[in-house]
Amino acid sequence: MQALQPLRDYLQQTRLLASISSTLYFDQNTVMPAASAPWRGEQLALLAAQLHQRQTSDEYGDLLAAAEAEAAQSNAALPQRNLELLRLELDRRRCLDPDLVRALTRAQSHGNAVWQEARRTDSYATFAPALQQLISLRLEQAGQLRQAEPAGRSPWEILAQPFEPDVSKTRLEQLFAPLKQHLPPLLNQVMATQHSAAAAPDISPALQDQLCADLLQSWGYDRQRCHVSRSAHPFSCTLGPHDFRITTRVVDGQPFSCFLAAAHEWGHSLYEQGLPRDQPQAFPWPLGDATSMGVHESQSLFWECRVARSQVFAERWHPKFCQALKQDPWGSANQFWRALNPMRPGFIRVEADELSYCLHIVLRYELELDLLEGGLPVEELPQQWNQRFEQLLGLTPCSDRVGCLQDIHWAEAMFGYFPSYALGHLISAQLSEAMVADLGPLEAPIAADDPGPLRDWLAAHVWHLGRSVNAEQLVEQVSGVPLSAEPFLKYLREKVERLLAPQRSAVS
Amino acid sequence: MQALQPLRDYLQQTRLLASISSTLYFDQNTVMPAASAPWRGEQLALLAAQLHQRQTSDEYGDLLAAAEAEAAQSNAALPQRNLELLRLELDRRRCLDPDLVRALTRAQSHGNAVWQEARRTDSYATFAPALQQLISLRLEQAGQLRQAEPAGRSPWEILAQPFEPDVSKTRLEQLFAPLKQHLPPLLNQVMATQHSAAAAPDISPALQDQLCADLLQSWGYDRQRCHVSRSAHPFSCTLGPHDFRITTRVVDGQPFSCFLAAAHEWGHSLYEQGLPRDQPQAFPWPLGDATSMGVHESQSLFWECRVARSQVFAERWHPKFCQALKQDPWGSANQFWRALNPMRPGFIRVEADELSYCLHIVLRYELELDLLEGGLPVEELPQQWNQRFEQLLGLTPCSDRVGCLQDIHWAEAMFGYFPSYALGHLISAQLSEAMVADLGPLEAPIAADDPGPLRDWLAAHVWHLGRSVNAEQLVEQVSGVPLSAEPFLKYLREKVERLLAPQRSAVS
Repeated sequence: MQALQPLRDYLQQTRLLASISSTLYFDQNTVMPAASAPWRGEQLALLAAQLHQRQTSDEYGDLLAAAEAEAAQSNAALPQRNLELLRLELDRRRCLDPDLVRALTRAQSHGNAVWQEARRTDSYATFAPALQQLISLRLEQAGQLRQAEPAGRSPWEILAQPFEPDVSKTRLEQLFAPLKQHLPPLLNQVMATQHSAAAAPDISPALQDQLCADLLQSWGYDRQRCHVSRSAHPFSCTLGPHDFRITTRVVDGQPFSCFLAAAHEWGHSLYEQGLPRDQPQAFPWPLGDATSMGVHESQSLFWECRVARSQVFAERWHPKFCQALKQDPWGSANQFWRALNPMRPGFIRVEADELSYCLHIVLRYELELDLLEGGLPVEELPQQWNQRFEQLLGLTPCSDRVGCLQDIHWAEAMFGYFPSYALGHLISAQLSEAMVADLGPLEAPIAADDPGPLRDWLAAHVWHLGRSVNAEQLVEQVSGVPLSAEPFLKYLREKVERLLAPQRSAVS
Repeated sequence: MQALQPLRDYLQQTRLLASISSTLYFDQNTVMPAASAPWRGEQLALLAAQLHQRQTSDEYGDLLAAAEAEAAQSNAALPQRNLELLRLELDRRRCLDPDLVRALTRAQSHGNAVWQEARRTDSYATFAPALQQLISLRLEQAGQLRQAEPAGRSPWEILAQPFEPDVSKTRLEQLFAPLKQHLPPLLNQVMATQHSAAAAPDISPALQDQLCADLLQSWGYDRQRCHVSRSAHPFSCTLGPHDFRITTRVVDGQPFSCFLAAAHEWGHSLYEQGLPRDQPQAFPWPLGDATSMGVHESQSLFWECRVARSQVFAERWHPKFCQALKQDPWGSANQFWRALNPMRPGFIRVEADELSYCLHIVLRYELELDLLEGGLPVEELPQQWNQRFEQLLGLTPCSDRVGCLQDIHWAEAMFGYFPSYALGHLISAQLSEAMVADLGPLEAPIAADDPGPLRDWLAAHVWHLGRSVNAEQLVEQVSGVPLSAEPFLKYLREKVERLLAPQRSAVS
């Protein structure tokens, strides 16, 4: 395969540039002083222009075509799939009018700024024109991208592809319908038998850091390859083949926020660390990337919800928290577990529990579909938001700040992203069932603080696949059946039953 | 000036690239996991290649020539000096054979690796061949650079120019001779009347951080434009027109190390913050850069030695340290001041006191001169080091690890850098005398924790000059007389006298 090497070298340089940009992003969100934002913007714009040039150049097109011609003779599967992924991305990029790309970049930056101000002042009206412009530009983009897409994809579907390859509205409706049907009654059941919530104990930032460090240590954190920083919003990112960063934050009045964020982001990072690109030779190829945002989220949710919010985990960690605090504010491991699993619907998506979270997503998905394809005027968004929020979650947002202005996604024109969060819950549940079928109940390794078997199973069945399959193919390959909402609903029903059961002092 | 704008735009892009590289350097030395070093090396090499291309391209040469032609008509001083500096740098770069540049980069990277290992195993013999190669390559580089230099500069002088513009061996001999003559007897005097050093109290890392934060706060730290991180070796760097970073470290058994490093690095940063480039329009031009490493060091030493190690500062801060520690391990402000000023010769330059520090530098300067120009074989370096160390400092290093292998500079072929550290002490002393002549004794503002007058004076007399003058011109312009060692020696004599005086409980 003579033509692969120059293509690989070219991709390597592209990947280096992209990882430089990611490093600046990480720095910006962890330590950069605020006044440096304009300069950082110029640095990122310079790198973005270089990246765009590299990713659309004739030189690159020629290298890819030569590799494709050579691969056509050999029929080796690995380069074929890599070349398919590269071709799809190149064709998509080449469809786009550079003027539109620039206009969209400016509009996203403008949208973000206007949204910040609108949220601060709770003034949706000032944000509406920017949102309308973002919708128009993205629809124009979808129109240009159409030539690179299979026939029949709708504008929303086209825009969602980068987040969730091969996603369709029909499939999402199938998957989300049971959620809309079964989650609200489950939520009502919980609220009707609400157990009184104890006041959250205060855990100092230093202790929260220590507990996070203990958690990550027991979950295989390797300081030679990983680093934890602080940022305003927790995230995980990969800055090189051996450079994995996560961030956490301490939230006043939410003593588990930092700890659960560490578990969540570490789940993202473990997936990244397990992708088939740990050799520098493999790093530039797309096959080694994450296959979808939904699968990514399934991994973070596995470690956060299946492990860190589980009852056996609470039993194991209750003494550690008490030791750190030099007291037991919960009174029992069972109450500690309940504190890790509050089930109360609220206005804010990022603070939502496992039960209501997907309803927040269904709301956003249906609204952005109506905005992009259903003729919903942007002016009516707040009213529609509040009305549907009440239907789904039984509450009426008291302001747009905690309503349709709460998320950054639309302000940056990221239409098509939200469903991946809900897919993550469904995928995580179905993969967990498959894991239990292989390994037996997960209680034993969790109780022993030994995540080795879980990690090994995920590495062998999920992580090593990279982009060789899409999210749905992955789930079917691993579990033997197509993705559905059933495992997730079953998991929630069981969890709710246990949470609502009369408190026991020990758990069998 | 029509031709200036395109040149400025070009320089702006170059500066953006350079600052991206600096940001990666900062990340590497503060949070990057160790295993990512090879990838970071590739990222930096990519940026270095882009920078080199930009800085030697025909496009750049044409832009500069056009600006020069235009400026020749106008006689405006500001663009003239900027263009002179740019021309000098371009001519120097164009003298260099790209093959030599690459060979030197590789040899520096190799030299660093071999040096790390040689220092670890205390095995100078394994480092000697790499050092010989670095010397040969740098001499070859000096030979190529000769065409861009004024006639008569020696190879060492040519290599020292980037650190200390216009430096000469003759001048250094004039400046260093009094140090060689007067510092050893002063050192002997201190050692003969050595006061017993109290055991260093333990200050927790968290308390050290808090004391550093208090110090920087009182010295005008602005978190909108500055950030403090941890690194293995303290440093200061500028990552954009409004992005100033410093780093500190906590050293076991050295309770003031972190605090004094913060003072020192903040001194570097204040100079950077005060340079005439705070407007984005000015940032790309060389005139807004620091004029020399010696002047840079004079600024860090001013805040570390003149302020933070002064007797009035100790009186002001002794209660703060006692309050933080909830006890007084020193017993009095006077003893606290003495603890801030240990005067004991040792093997290690970076741990040296004000009295012996310059002797460490003279030793290195004379040795690198002999290595590059005097025919000293690299094999004889350890013996020469130890012999001269004894002559200058009265001690014989017990191993090469604490002898000629201690510094990274030669391992990275940074010949010509060391003298700037000593020049920093001389310049700082002479500028301080000028400041006192203008403002009166510095005790009042230091005692009041009000660095405003000192900062304003330095801003007006030193910082705003940028590269409009070189180090010697700056000193003469500010103090009215040429740079000499006399103010520094006078300062030390007075300090030693006070340190050796019978202890008083209060200071007038």
